[in-house]
Amino acid sequence: MSSAAAPPRAVCLVSGGMDSAVTLAEARAQGFAAYALTVRYGQRHACELEAARRVARAGGAIEQRELALDLAALGGSVLTGPGTVPKGRDEAAIAAGGVPATYVPARNTVFLALALAWAEALGARDLFLGVNALDYSGYPDCRPEFLRAFEALARLATAAGSEHDARFRIHAPLVALTKKDIVLRAAALGVDLALTHTCYDPLERGGRWLACGRCDACRLRLKGFREAGRRDPIEYVEGSER
Amino acid sequence: MSSAAAPPRAVCLVSGGMDSAVTLAEARAQGFAAYALTVRYGQRHACELEAARRVARAGGAIEQRELALDLAALGGSVLTGPGTVPKGRDEAAIAAGGVPATYVPARNTVFLALALAWAEALGARDLFLGVNALDYSGYPDCRPEFLRAFEALARLATAAGSEHDARFRIHAPLVALTKKDIVLRAAALGVDLALTHTCYDPLERGGRWLACGRCDACRLRLKGFREAGRRDPIEYVEGSER
Repeated sequence: MSSAAAPPRAVCLVSGGMDSAVTLAEARAQGFAAYALTVRYGQRHACELEAARRVARAGGAIEQRELALDLAALGGSVLTGPGTVPKGRDEAAIAAGGVPATYVPARNTVFLALALAWAEALGARDLFLGVNALDYSGYPDCRPEFLRAFEALARLATAAGSEHDARFRIHAPLVALTKKDIVLRAAALGVDLALTHTCYDPLERGGRWLACGRCDACRLRLKGFREAGRRDPIEYVEGSER
Repeated sequence: MSSAAAPPRAVCLVSGGMDSAVTLAEARAQGFAAYALTVRYGQRHACELEAARRVARAGGAIEQRELALDLAALGGSVLTGPGTVPKGRDEAAIAAGGVPATYVPARNTVFLALALAWAEALGARDLFLGVNALDYSGYPDCRPEFLRAFEALARLATAAGSEHDARFRIHAPLVALTKKDIVLRAAALGVDLALTHTCYDPLERGGRWLACGRCDACRLRLKGFREAGRRDPIEYVEGSER
């Protein structure tokens, strides 16, 4: 393959959720050769790692790497430690002027730093991240100003940025979409959302993982399907607020 | 202990090298309760992890955590992968306008992101990093402008920064010191440099690790001792360019 014909490479963070599946598809639709990066960070919903493998394969990633990193050892979140995942919006935390208990300190900073490391080794300048800042849980590291600050950092942080004045671009194609838009975009791009996993607090039953339907992640996902007039193809526990 | 009397907490990245040992001592000298963070990132000189444990203990860290993260899986450096560690300055790479082969893509971005995650969980606002930008290998992520960009990012990246407009401070007390200054500062602060390990390419002999005396890290360390008029207390291989 001549270098003129080779598509540019991009590193795409793939968690296995709906947003990352659509983000991977957007990277491919924009003509990138996608390298999927998944982080096993001690999340309690580790079944999302199986979903990440399905999503990367179905989404046409050139390669997927799964990095293990024990963020649970650093504490600070019910998503990686003891405590209960709140059902619905974490109104108690939000009323106190805070972020939900499911927030993992500096998670997206860590993920983007790892994506940047791989991008530099691959000669890629484009990073894709499936954050969105409309129908979201209020995590600070999902906002556009955070993404711009990371871009500014990336140029100073790397040999590539310093030597060649190369700019790294952080693409967050979903950042201004509603969950409804994301469901519709998935359909337009041919993304099979049955492969994805979103729930923070899933229940295993007979080897299958059922979404709880009540945590903030499920709530936002279901809202998207409802507003898009579509049926979510994944399985939920019976009696959940679907 | 009343909260008025409790010293503020700081997260200090401790690799086990001379610079991180002196940085930990600076944090303590400035009155911080120091939490030492060490990353097992697939470095070939893994004996520095033993040094990190010695340094954290001797340096009075409240606690040390060692996080495993396989940066080798992302490639891009002879420090984590196949290839030869250059002896002396990596003139070939530098002449080509590049950084040395021992550069690990985005390493300090990843390390600071992890330190930020722990700091937020601990309620700390101060991060200490032992980089220096005078007698150094030319890594881009050791420069003051990189550190300032990370500070700007940290405020946007975290719940603490967003809710309370809390500023995280990145302290790099050695950034403008020569290696000679660092050796003298170690003496002034009572840091035992015999506990530290610096060499990128050490040789094991009878259960002891000997520094090669010839890699860029050894070269800079030895220059510091020579200029300070002191003898380096660690062991080198015989016949090395000590």
